[in-house]
Amino acid sequence: MASDDLSEFDLIARLFEPLSRGHQGALGLLDDAAILPPLNDQERIVTTDCLVCDVHFRREDPPESVASKALGVNLSDLAAMGATPEAYTLALSIPRGCENTWLEAFAGHLQIVQDNYGISLIGGDTVSTPGPMTISITAIGKCAHGSALKRSTAQPGDDIYVSGTIGDAALGLKVLQETLSAATDISLDQLSERYQYPQARTKLGQALSETNTSQINLSNTNNASLIRACCDISDGLIADLAHICTASECQAEIDTDLIPLSASAQELLLQDAPLIETILFGGDDYELIFTTAPDNEALIQKLSLQTQTQITRIGRITQPNDDKKTVILAGSYTDYLSSSEQNGFIHSW
Amino acid sequence: MASDDLSEFDLIARLFEPLSRGHQGALGLLDDAAILPPLNDQERIVTTDCLVCDVHFRREDPPESVASKALGVNLSDLAAMGATPEAYTLALSIPRGCENTWLEAFAGHLQIVQDNYGISLIGGDTVSTPGPMTISITAIGKCAHGSALKRSTAQPGDDIYVSGTIGDAALGLKVLQETLSAATDISLDQLSERYQYPQARTKLGQALSETNTSQINLSNTNNASLIRACCDISDGLIADLAHICTASECQAEIDTDLIPLSASAQELLLQDAPLIETILFGGDDYELIFTTAPDNEALIQKLSLQTQTQITRIGRITQPNDDKKTVILAGSYTDYLSSSEQNGFIHSW
Repeated sequence: MASDDLSEFDLIARLFEPLSRGHQGALGLLDDAAILPPLNDQERIVTTDCLVCDVHFRREDPPESVASKALGVNLSDLAAMGATPEAYTLALSIPRGCENTWLEAFAGHLQIVQDNYGISLIGGDTVSTPGPMTISITAIGKCAHGSALKRSTAQPGDDIYVSGTIGDAALGLKVLQETLSAATDISLDQLSERYQYPQARTKLGQALSETNTSQINLSNTNNASLIRACCDISDGLIADLAHICTASECQAEIDTDLIPLSASAQELLLQDAPLIETILFGGDDYELIFTTAPDNEALIQKLSLQTQTQITRIGRITQPNDDKKTVILAGSYTDYLSSSEQNGFIHSW
Repeated sequence: MASDDLSEFDLIARLFEPLSRGHQGALGLLDDAAILPPLNDQERIVTTDCLVCDVHFRREDPPESVASKALGVNLSDLAAMGATPEAYTLALSIPRGCENTWLEAFAGHLQIVQDNYGISLIGGDTVSTPGPMTISITAIGKCAHGSALKRSTAQPGDDIYVSGTIGDAALGLKVLQETLSAATDISLDQLSERYQYPQARTKLGQALSETNTSQINLSNTNNASLIRACCDISDGLIADLAHICTASECQAEIDTDLIPLSASAQELLLQDAPLIETILFGGDDYELIFTTAPDNEALIQKLSLQTQTQITRIGRITQPNDDKKTVILAGSYTDYLSSSEQNGFIHSW
């Protein structure tokens, strides 16, 4: 049965109402809007991201992957602000003829992802479209007043850190597109899984903002232990670091040899050095990139242990330069970049 | 120049960043998410509605009308909950080849509408789509803890009231589609304007929830002066009243002769009585329909004067009936309804 046979009410009742049961303020998705309870002295963090079939995901991607990406990219934005996820709304434009089995699998996997993060669906809209499947999610989180992490607060001298490993998702997309000429003895499933099932760095984001809250409570607003700027890596390592640099009016220098790579990515890079471009400029890793004053290795080590997250220093923030380059690359792999990339990444915002 | 020539960053900077200037927490639309400040003892109300070209608006509708509808339908949902609008996010899927002049006019009118309601754009996403223009807005408002209006709280015996006049928008759509066989001496522009430029009943919604807040503060939780159930009229008068009945497990009886009509709608109905169907079942009026205990005429009169809003009693809530009809129609125009509609509106939720 195609979804045309189901009214909006049937769809909401059968597929999406179960996703709202964990939140009283969702009102069973039966009212005009949802109610979020008062949170004294906490700010609410709000983000909206939209995915379009054939643009942000492939038509052949399984519905479970699409659900994972649609919610994951928003939860990653909340993590980048240091927020604890609370709830989300879903605007789903369903193409004519979409099979109910697809929608059931999509909703079923949303349930799994939302349960992982302890959140519920609180509202939204399901509409029919003559175009491709389009999924817009607004995620809402919370954090202590004044502790949200921003892109604009990096300072020259800061060390730059990233979580996890970089480049896996972009390499995973190449695996799925079958455009890698790699030896078959490399495990590639883990790369495609990074692309299809992104994990938001929620715990790390929370720990970063809580580090700042505890410093603020000690009135140490100039304390060198503050986490300064943060964003998530969705557009690509270099592009997202450039966002921090632009917002903070700084420059960054990173050493490509310091970038943390998975075992599979390392092996691929050994076989095909120009893949460094995919690693640096590909996106969809949903790791966090953040800056903190130098000499905070002990703090970072503590955060890494506390959140069970690999955290790696990859470079530092410098004074802005008149050449308008935002990110300067150094390291042994830079020879394999095209000349414009060797000259650094120019962000013209 | 088509929008393909503008990057997402260019678009955001030039068209949408100006819409965020009224809200510090929008962070210039440059960060991963927006920050809404703590609001002690107030709830936040959240709603998401999605509009698709050729489904929810006509391709030939002016961009100003599309902006007005996209924001208006969400603000109407907030009004139905009694919330004060605070901010919104926008997920805009832009079809390839869309003219920048269209986007400029769209953004320009969003500015006008948001200024009318005192709110700002705080975040969102602009993406390219191979499909039709798709606009998803999430609006966020606030109201005193416990005072949000719901659909589920109507009680048998309640009087049913509506704001403004009913049916104008659906008749206005017929004007635009040129499917009305009306005399040319009737002013029809005002009808099509109701369809193209909806106005949310924000002041009335706020006044309704504030009525309840003042009663709650007096600990009069069983007070007969409470506004009980409320929703906005988007799907149509009968469909939306049926939503209240279903959520409240009640039945409703309305007298079609009591339904408030504009002068243009009255004249059209005199010429063509079957248009009563359009008035009762057409949507897009964005008026409020609400219930309150009987004998509250003085309270309603006060609210009407205070908010400068026409408010009309059209019927009452009754005990649920075994025949599962949710809305029973009476009045002189019911003869012109098809037999299934004469028998009442059956909502099978």
